[in-house]
Amino acid sequence: MLANLKMWLHKEPPGRIIVVSFAIIILTGSLLLCLPACTRPGKSTSYLDALFTAGSATCVTGLTLFDTYRHWTTLGQVFILMLIQVGGLGLVTFTTGFTLLMHKKLGLRNMELAVENTNGDSGDIGSLVRMILKFTFSCEGIGALILMIRFLPQMGAHGIWVSVFLAVSAYCNAGFDILGSVMENGNLIPYAADPLVCLTIDMLIIVGGLGFVVIADICHSKLQPTLHGQHRHSLGFHSRIVLSMAILLIILGTIVFMVLEYKNTLASLPNFGAKLNAALLQSVSPRTAGFASVDLSKEYDFTKIFTVLLMFIGAAPGSTGGGIKTTTMLVLLCCVHSVLRGQPEAIFHHRRIDKFTVYRALAICGVGMLVVLIVTGIITSTTPNVNGVDALYEATSAFGTVGLTAGVTPRLSPISRIAIILTMYIGRVGPVSLGLAVSIKHGHIHTDSVLPEGKIIVG
Amino acid sequence: MLANLKMWLHKEPPGRIIVVSFAIIILTGSLLLCLPACTRPGKSTSYLDALFTAGSATCVTGLTLFDTYRHWTTLGQVFILMLIQVGGLGLVTFTTGFTLLMHKKLGLRNMELAVENTNGDSGDIGSLVRMILKFTFSCEGIGALILMIRFLPQMGAHGIWVSVFLAVSAYCNAGFDILGSVMENGNLIPYAADPLVCLTIDMLIIVGGLGFVVIADICHSKLQPTLHGQHRHSLGFHSRIVLSMAILLIILGTIVFMVLEYKNTLASLPNFGAKLNAALLQSVSPRTAGFASVDLSKEYDFTKIFTVLLMFIGAAPGSTGGGIKTTTMLVLLCCVHSVLRGQPEAIFHHRRIDKFTVYRALAICGVGMLVVLIVTGIITSTTPNVNGVDALYEATSAFGTVGLTAGVTPRLSPISRIAIILTMYIGRVGPVSLGLAVSIKHGHIHTDSVLPEGKIIVG
Ligand SMILES: [K+]
Ligand SMILES: [K+]
Repeated sequence: MLANLKMWLHKEPPGRIIVVSFAIIILTGSLLLCLPACTRPGKSTSYLDALFTAGSATCVTGLTLFDTYRHWTTLGQVFILMLIQVGGLGLVTFTTGFTLLMHKKLGLRNMELAVENTNGDSGDIGSLVRMILKFTFSCEGIGALILMIRFLPQMGAHGIWVSVFLAVSAYCNAGFDILGSVMENGNLIPYAADPLVCLTIDMLIIVGGLGFVVIADICHSKLQPTLHGQHRHSLGFHSRIVLSMAILLIILGTIVFMVLEYKNTLASLPNFGAKLNAALLQSVSPRTAGFASVDLSKEYDFTKIFTVLLMFIGAAPGSTGGGIKTTTMLVLLCCVHSVLRGQPEAIFHHRRIDKFTVYRALAICGVGMLVVLIVTGIITSTTPNVNGVDALYEATSAFGTVGLTAGVTPRLSPISRIAIILTMYIGRVGPVSLGLAVSIKHGHIHTDSVLPEGKIIVG
Repeated sequence: MLANLKMWLHKEPPGRIIVVSFAIIILTGSLLLCLPACTRPGKSTSYLDALFTAGSATCVTGLTLFDTYRHWTTLGQVFILMLIQVGGLGLVTFTTGFTLLMHKKLGLRNMELAVENTNGDSGDIGSLVRMILKFTFSCEGIGALILMIRFLPQMGAHGIWVSVFLAVSAYCNAGFDILGSVMENGNLIPYAADPLVCLTIDMLIIVGGLGFVVIADICHSKLQPTLHGQHRHSLGFHSRIVLSMAILLIILGTIVFMVLEYKNTLASLPNFGAKLNAALLQSVSPRTAGFASVDLSKEYDFTKIFTVLLMFIGAAPGSTGGGIKTTTMLVLLCCVHSVLRGQPEAIFHHRRIDKFTVYRALAICGVGMLVVLIVTGIITSTTPNVNGVDALYEATSAFGTVGLTAGVTPRLSPISRIAIILTMYIGRVGPVSLGLAVSIKHGHIHTDSVLPEGKIIVG
């Protein structure tokens, strides 16, 4: 059987291996969460509930049917956190790292997998994976230590677990919390005006959402030379794009939230600083962490629609975040801009963007929209008393593996729950990877490049 | 001054001439509608109201602030119908046709304009324009005669005017009606179960929405050979695509409307046939005629979202309809499908689609979405008690020059009204044509095709 598995691993395209392994992890997680020891006394968990929770954790989404703290025992919470860590680091990066630690050596196959998952170039994969693990655990550790400043005095020893859980959940852009002892389903609402908690979580989310390629580039080009007093290099093309998009979207989001919600959901906060703190979190979080420090169900419809946009765009590729990815959005915008200027190529900063990159970006965005639209339809037509915007919000939240909800999740019909589980899965493995995994026959790629051209008139 | 104008016409790119002429027609129309003789006694028309109506008529949108019959005198209605006919035929086709009839000869400049507007190939423009005019007036004439069967007995002599108005409005995909004597703001609701009226209007909308290139192809390849007993040719690539998309979308729309609204807005209709009649109209009309035979404000949210999709897609290029156009949508879908199959080209029916066509389609769709989103934001944030879905519906309706409304138009704030006027204009002249008209400096097109390639990792 092991021989069969080995043969399968060598024959299948890497994308399909990712798709299958993710499914296996989710199913294993759902069985673990079904154990009676995972559910608190007096509560009950159906298999669909467990599957939903395991899917939400593995896909680092954060949509929950119950308050995580009040429904699950510590064992259940530990399982959920493990699923988050495995799913967040990227199943494959994790297994590659594991293989590396065990064998101190990477086979060609594993290397391909690691490249596929981090979207990076295939330089020195071994050191990259070691760096990923070291960097991840360092960030989560530092984050947890800072959070303990708040939670240790407040909750005693339990505060350590809360801090660790929150730090991992934030770095992995998962959005799960176990703050139910403070306020049921309250997420970060009790800490909306607390800069220590919110800024730490903001930082963890942002760093986790940049992607390892960018972090490696920053370490290699800026941090290490600075530490060793050497000449610093300039960042790569990809890193500069990712950083610019992150900064741009964070600032834009904060301003829009401040303007739209100042007299609505932000009104109850004591002063401008607290409002800014909350607006910053509501700008960082939809891409694609899913923490909330205000009551999202009370947001204006247009704030929700704007959030849907941020959720759909998501974070950088090869990061712990989801969505169609900031670079995908940028490629599409560049293409639109070039056409409007009458240029024959998609151009960004005096560089031509390859046709296939544009096509791929278009496919990711197109399939994403289609999935979101179908799921919105399923939710509105099977769940009573849900308006269109809230259903759209929920569907996008699942596709972007965000986890924000306008309060719809616990009310979802069984069919909608299954649709949401599938959407989280599609969103996490990537619609195009999934499509390719399903359609390509054993790594064979069509290359009908000598077809005659067909003229189609558009718009 | 005439010399200056001639010089301008020769120097500017055709796109910019279209953009400017459309603006001039709208402004002229708004001044005409401001005449006191256009407004019925006891009613009043502000300049913004007149501008909105002129814009809506010229852009063949059909969004109205008032009931057309009850607010405007017959003179006002005549002006509106003239604006519809000019806008619907395409300003340029009309002026080209006019020039042709006057001079019996087309200069090179006019030829370019006609090609730009019909998106056709530049074969025999003269006969094309003559055919356009003949065909348009024949269709409208036949439509009006059929409609008289219903309206002459019902309204006497006034029924002739009602029939002509409706036929022109339907063929031009304008969506205006003067049925206010039967039911205020009722549009076709009183005739929802009447197949004579509805099917006639369906046919006019569909034929008008196919585009003249396709109609010419059908005449040339099928009708004329059949009439003369000759061998029939197969239709061109473009025609086959347009026809397939039209049939596909009409059938899909009818089924979806039947399923979603059977027990909601269709419930009051007496039998299955009447419901099917109404569902067919609600499938044909959002692309982009804008007639309604049910109360759209009572539709389920998901039906509205589905309608938004149909409105956004619209009709065929070079037709009287709006939207991003069915072919644009098809190109995008083909590109997505090819990427998912691992193909390196966008392929449709064994034909390769050119890169620039894909880019252009992407730009049209992208700008359209951006415009719709911004306008949705303006409507929700300046108009009280409008939910997000209705605002999205209204914004898309304006962009697609559809004219369907969930009852929001008359309540729009002044800022929203101006935004809607601009959106109708952008939707009618086409976002990319407008962008090119603004950005290209005197016909000079950038051709930086030797730029280095920049690698961007997407999704
Ligand atoms: K999340
Ligand atoms: K219309």
